[in-house]
Amino acid sequence: MIVYGKNVAKEVLKNNKKIEKILLQDNFDDKEILQLIENQKIYPQRLGKKEFSKFDKYSSQGIILYIEDFKYSDIEDFTCNDSSVIVILDHLEDPHNLGAIVRTCEAAGVDGIIIPKDRSVEVNSTVMKTSAGALENMKIAKVTNLNQTINKLKDKGYWIVGTDMENSTDYRKIDYTGKIALVIGNEGTGMSRQVRESCDFIASIPMYGKINSLNASVAAGIMIYEVIRIRN
Amino acid sequence: MIVYGKNVAKEVLKNNKKIEKILLQDNFDDKEILQLIENQKIYPQRLGKKEFSKFDKYSSQGIILYIEDFKYSDIEDFTCNDSSVIVILDHLEDPHNLGAIVRTCEAAGVDGIIIPKDRSVEVNSTVMKTSAGALENMKIAKVTNLNQTINKLKDKGYWIVGTDMENSTDYRKIDYTGKIALVIGNEGTGMSRQVRESCDFIASIPMYGKINSLNASVAAGIMIYEVIRIRN
Repeated sequence: MIVYGKNVAKEVLKNNKKIEKILLQDNFDDKEILQLIENQKIYPQRLGKKEFSKFDKYSSQGIILYIEDFKYSDIEDFTCNDSSVIVILDHLEDPHNLGAIVRTCEAAGVDGIIIPKDRSVEVNSTVMKTSAGALENMKIAKVTNLNQTINKLKDKGYWIVGTDMENSTDYRKIDYTGKIALVIGNEGTGMSRQVRESCDFIASIPMYGKINSLNASVAAGIMIYEVIRIRN
Repeated sequence: MIVYGKNVAKEVLKNNKKIEKILLQDNFDDKEILQLIENQKIYPQRLGKKEFSKFDKYSSQGIILYIEDFKYSDIEDFTCNDSSVIVILDHLEDPHNLGAIVRTCEAAGVDGIIIPKDRSVEVNSTVMKTSAGALENMKIAKVTNLNQTINKLKDKGYWIVGTDMENSTDYRKIDYTGKIALVIGNEGTGMSRQVRESCDFIASIPMYGKINSLNASVAAGIMIYEVIRIRN
């Protein structure tokens, strides 16, 4: 995976991730980062502005790191107890949303995130940047079939809570005790039909405006903090 | 203001905003949008791919609109009653965050948003895109001095609720009855010292992870929905 910019660079260098290569623009002089690079005993490659710009897909602030790919977990690795919370992302598309949701899940103490293998955003450098370091401490599993996974979770005693506007219950009126798997739908089309049918409850966030839709990561944040409201 | 892309174009064309000019790439053929343009009796300028790309700063999907600038409101224009809610953004920087917060405020029925004139993100095309149409229905005031504005709001009977991790009260334990002005701080540095000192309460969202920070628009979403929890 290739990551760009100072903030991500700091996170990567502090977290002892396997770094394959570091490219620096020749005038790069951030002392803190240069010290971190030295501590890791890595020899960065310095490039002139023109040469560097060939590698610089995003505004990288003069630093690009080539690091090992993100290691996905298996659902079996998720911590599982009587008050476990899992977040299922039903074909999310936007890496900024995935990054922000990873950050919220880490802060809220969620036990794991599940994404489908196909037609879904994956962990990339934008996700890493947006998650602001939280990615390092979050388990994410990639599964072939969301419906089969949901059935497995049901067998383990999870209640499946979907989110949708129609035929739904006010999110403040659902009992979230026990193991909960919260499903967040696609940004445009929401949850898929089959996933919706597998849900034990459908929660909706009440809306009072004309547009009546929230950003997916904001909706996820409100729902996640509602689920953990009476925990801890 | 210049806006890019099909979704924003649809919003603009449906909301009868003053459109100065429309640029289309010569192969643009979205029937719905072309019909909307025809309804408005505007004659778009068609450009070849190469010529069009000169104007195309963002991936515009072949359509760029030049529209009238966003019209800021005066605080006096905000609806004000016994349960009014205002959101104050203390020097936010990221237009994606402003856009997502505008969307949340519109959905939650917030009466207005206040931003400072200097060192703050303003309404631009990214904000417009991220707000997903909510901008049209949201009052935003730009003020010279946040502290003076906060004092004015106090005179009108608003309780000022800041958000911070330190010396704070769990956000679930604050009484939000009455008029509330909720302050969201800068993405990196939080609220400024003076604004913090003006707050009647400081609320914090409990965090249980290692990184312990939320995206600003997610934190704003959780707080806004907490403030309106017992309203409506």
